[in-house]
Amino acid sequence: MHRTHHCGELRIENKGEKVILSGWVQRVRNKGGLLWIDLRDRYGITQLLCEEGKTNEDILKTARKVGREFVLQAKGEVLERFSKNDKMATGEIEISLEELKILNAAKTPPFTIEDDTDGGEELRMQYRYLDLRRPAVREKLKLRHQLMQATRRFMDSAGFLEVETPVLIKSTPEGARDFVVPSRVHEGEFYALPQSPQTFKQLLMVSGFDKYFQIVKCFRDEDLRADRQPEFTQIDCEMSFVEQEDILNTFEEMVKYLFKEVKGVEIDDFERMTYDQAMKLYGSDKPDIRFGMPFVELNEHAQGKGFNVFDQAELVVGINVPGAAEYTRKQLDALTEYVKRPQIGAKGLVYVKCNEDGSFKSSVDKFYSQEDLNAWAEAAEAKAGDLLLVLSGDIDHTRRAMNELRLKMGTELGLRDRNVFKPLWVLDFPLLEWDEETKRFHAMHHPFTSPKPEDMEFIESDPGRIRANAYDMVINGVEIGGGSIRIHDKSLQQKMFKALGFTEEEAQKQFGFLMEAFEYGAPPHGGIAFGFDRLCAMFGGSDSIRDYIAFPKNNAGRDVMIDSPATISPEQLKELHLSIK
Amino acid sequence: MHRTHHCGELRIENKGEKVILSGWVQRVRNKGGLLWIDLRDRYGITQLLCEEGKTNEDILKTARKVGREFVLQAKGEVLERFSKNDKMATGEIEISLEELKILNAAKTPPFTIEDDTDGGEELRMQYRYLDLRRPAVREKLKLRHQLMQATRRFMDSAGFLEVETPVLIKSTPEGARDFVVPSRVHEGEFYALPQSPQTFKQLLMVSGFDKYFQIVKCFRDEDLRADRQPEFTQIDCEMSFVEQEDILNTFEEMVKYLFKEVKGVEIDDFERMTYDQAMKLYGSDKPDIRFGMPFVELNEHAQGKGFNVFDQAELVVGINVPGAAEYTRKQLDALTEYVKRPQIGAKGLVYVKCNEDGSFKSSVDKFYSQEDLNAWAEAAEAKAGDLLLVLSGDIDHTRRAMNELRLKMGTELGLRDRNVFKPLWVLDFPLLEWDEETKRFHAMHHPFTSPKPEDMEFIESDPGRIRANAYDMVINGVEIGGGSIRIHDKSLQQKMFKALGFTEEEAQKQFGFLMEAFEYGAPPHGGIAFGFDRLCAMFGGSDSIRDYIAFPKNNAGRDVMIDSPATISPEQLKELHLSIK
Repeated sequence: MHRTHHCGELRIENKGEKVILSGWVQRVRNKGGLLWIDLRDRYGITQLLCEEGKTNEDILKTARKVGREFVLQAKGEVLERFSKNDKMATGEIEISLEELKILNAAKTPPFTIEDDTDGGEELRMQYRYLDLRRPAVREKLKLRHQLMQATRRFMDSAGFLEVETPVLIKSTPEGARDFVVPSRVHEGEFYALPQSPQTFKQLLMVSGFDKYFQIVKCFRDEDLRADRQPEFTQIDCEMSFVEQEDILNTFEEMVKYLFKEVKGVEIDDFERMTYDQAMKLYGSDKPDIRFGMPFVELNEHAQGKGFNVFDQAELVVGINVPGAAEYTRKQLDALTEYVKRPQIGAKGLVYVKCNEDGSFKSSVDKFYSQEDLNAWAEAAEAKAGDLLLVLSGDIDHTRRAMNELRLKMGTELGLRDRNVFKPLWVLDFPLLEWDEETKRFHAMHHPFTSPKPEDMEFIESDPGRIRANAYDMVINGVEIGGGSIRIHDKSLQQKMFKALGFTEEEAQKQFGFLMEAFEYGAPPHGGIAFGFDRLCAMFGGSDSIRDYIAFPKNNAGRDVMIDSPATISPEQLKELHLSIK
Repeated sequence: MHRTHHCGELRIENKGEKVILSGWVQRVRNKGGLLWIDLRDRYGITQLLCEEGKTNEDILKTARKVGREFVLQAKGEVLERFSKNDKMATGEIEISLEELKILNAAKTPPFTIEDDTDGGEELRMQYRYLDLRRPAVREKLKLRHQLMQATRRFMDSAGFLEVETPVLIKSTPEGARDFVVPSRVHEGEFYALPQSPQTFKQLLMVSGFDKYFQIVKCFRDEDLRADRQPEFTQIDCEMSFVEQEDILNTFEEMVKYLFKEVKGVEIDDFERMTYDQAMKLYGSDKPDIRFGMPFVELNEHAQGKGFNVFDQAELVVGINVPGAAEYTRKQLDALTEYVKRPQIGAKGLVYVKCNEDGSFKSSVDKFYSQEDLNAWAEAAEAKAGDLLLVLSGDIDHTRRAMNELRLKMGTELGLRDRNVFKPLWVLDFPLLEWDEETKRFHAMHHPFTSPKPEDMEFIESDPGRIRANAYDMVINGVEIGGGSIRIHDKSLQQKMFKALGFTEEEAQKQFGFLMEAFEYGAPPHGGIAFGFDRLCAMFGGSDSIRDYIAFPKNNAGRDVMIDSPATISPEQLKELHLSIK
């Protein structure tokens, strides 16, 4: 038997018991003939004690040999400590050693195994198995475990069946790039790894499964950005005989359940806003509503007063930053520099300070009277002590820039508390978006999303105007999930492929099986998918999904620990009928 | 709202309620001015009623148009039926139609959507989404869902953390062939899909995760046999600071829990036997112990009496088939033919009937006296009315043939009841097995399995004799899971790779990261993996894993529904730096 207890378990009640513990050496201390070893495992740390003249000499000899991260098995008696440590769960006791065995030695680790480690990211990725020993990292993966189990409990109790869909499927040109898998048996042919189980879950609805879910790996061969991984995990869901409202209610319940179960937090009913509202009020389809500062359009108040910049702008838009009239010149200059950065791209920033005496001080006093500025302040519901920040230009860029500025002000004013959670449904997304590069429309969600019937009249004249039965769940400015009511009618699906520029032949080749399935009695259906890695990060209060993945890849898609990808043997290539160009 | 109830929900207590149902048309019947539609969904079937002269004429018109598998939405009042059907949960009621809407029409399906369908396997695979509508098929996948959820409940409550390991890993030459994934970013390099998360779960033990599990897809590019799939699902588990006994107990509990939760069956404590015992008594490392008929070695009784066939044989082995003395000449001839089939390969079959009067009748009466035969019968504990069946030849082939014959007799005598479950641990597997083709040893389990320390003396002299700390869980003659205590010492792992014919360089290139990890404090650890598809089939009382997979591939590894694998575009090939030879 390797242990009778784990290292987080013993208490003063166990005093006098003979126990066996196994674990890793956290640290060794020596003082005046006493030697302590802190023994660590997943569950905690327990202090082991040797005493010169009292503890057996062989044990002392062994104890003196051990270093950090050695694996030990220790047998002894539980003693009450002389000096207790009330910061440790086991802080009232220690183990007086009677046997000590080194189960495995350890080289000195390349970084310290502490929450506050001295290891850089690259080194920690290379030795990820040591990085995972740090309690803070393990807690993140424990949170992930808890979220997985709670999600499944909810879905199971709500009547969803978990169905595994295949990983070896077929490449489709729509969407992101596929990872492919050459077939050895079928020469010159390839499987593809799924970007999502979309078509399979729709087929399960055609099969009458009614409610499906799966926590499933998906794959995208995209150029990686900081927070993207080539493989990622989704909570994937689909329901039949539902309307949008049914889906929103079901998954609002799910997320409330997860917060309650995993974090002990009660979440309010979700706010809702349309895509158009979100863009108009926050310049983003994923607004952070932990704080206010909605956009105020100022064109009518700001134009025609001789300020050329505003007069020529498609949009003049402001936000009211409460209590920020005290911003200094230097702070305002820094904000101006911020919005002028290339990534944000504003030409300049106009401010209006609402003074305590009811007067205004602005950077455009030359063009605007106190009365003019008062009209702006009224429109923005600004009070004495507030600060108006105003941007102008074409609608899209200006909204985008103002979104960044609003988020920055929220951060500066400490309004984006990681322990506050404000979920939101964003509804009525556009069905299509125009792609300037390829000069054609792309599906904003995916080609299986159903348009709003009342907008179908624009299919020929103004396709960009069609709204979709599509929705995103946003929490604290992060898109956590998105979905739609799907098309379940073959001819509408065909029209959709046509609008997306597919030839009839291409549509048939890629999605013929789905359209054929629609002919055999497809029910109305819809669903949603959640980015599970991101959901974990959100629950953990972090921006980085990588911390919540046990063995992540780096920004170049490489696993530096196992050194993958790697070359394969000429025999393997030959069997796969491939050669490298 | 598409429905107020589902099609399996309404009872006589709902009489008088106005309800809305949605589902598929199972069948339509007409009789004397009455028209019934059986409406089906995942939950059941409800009967809809139209009455000429009573039901609205438009509804009647719609109802007359619908055919099998149309998707309908029906509104009406719950009535008590005139003639009740006590075989249906909803058999006491029917719905008097007040509104009827065709949500989607359906072409006539290519086979009947009934448990007893007229569709052949190929057709059902092509239209798998229709096959999945058959209640018997759906129930299989529902069982799979239940097993998944119950497994997770058990593992979670036993303190195991579910950790997702990567799918894009690195190709290793050991074991079966890998599926590989060409990298676009890293020219000429490939990821591989995991055959199991073996090395990652061992690294998690090095990380101190203590108890890990995952229900995970694995991949093997093997030549497919009837019951193999290129992608399959494993329950993968690993524990630290354990000995074999801890693992056996934990997973015996798990399987008992699953039987109790999912099937309501209490399972006895598992029997245990060594690999050597299993081979000697049953000629198989996965004996079916639902019935007896253990092997009896008869060399000492059967040799030296002038029967050349037995005299020259390495092994003479019999089984006692209880009560089968009444087998006719014709039946015995059929058994002889059976064992002489090329797949079984015995030269012939000797029988001894134990007559009711205490005498014996055998096919070798010429060579053996009644006294001789009595000695055989006594050795086999045969009683009057029993039948001894005897095979001979070299040990391996003869045991294998007798295993087949024993199983056949078990089946013929009805001793292999699908509702009886007899699990068994087979222990002490050999560490290595000799491969005649490559003239080297292969790891019987895998190269990370630890040898029994007391057998290490044979590492140079007789490696085939070394037993491993490896175990299989066998239920009813099917291997459900297998695992081992692992090596956690770098130098032993190096020795192991050497014994398997790896050069030091190869071992370093492939598994250097694991051996390096062992230097930083690896705990003693071990684990097990269960074939989840097979476990589902076992619980469902079926031999075919394919029935328990939502979208299986055929024997050529092809998904005939989506037509995969398929060619990819020249642009894709170019991006991947590949050309097809």
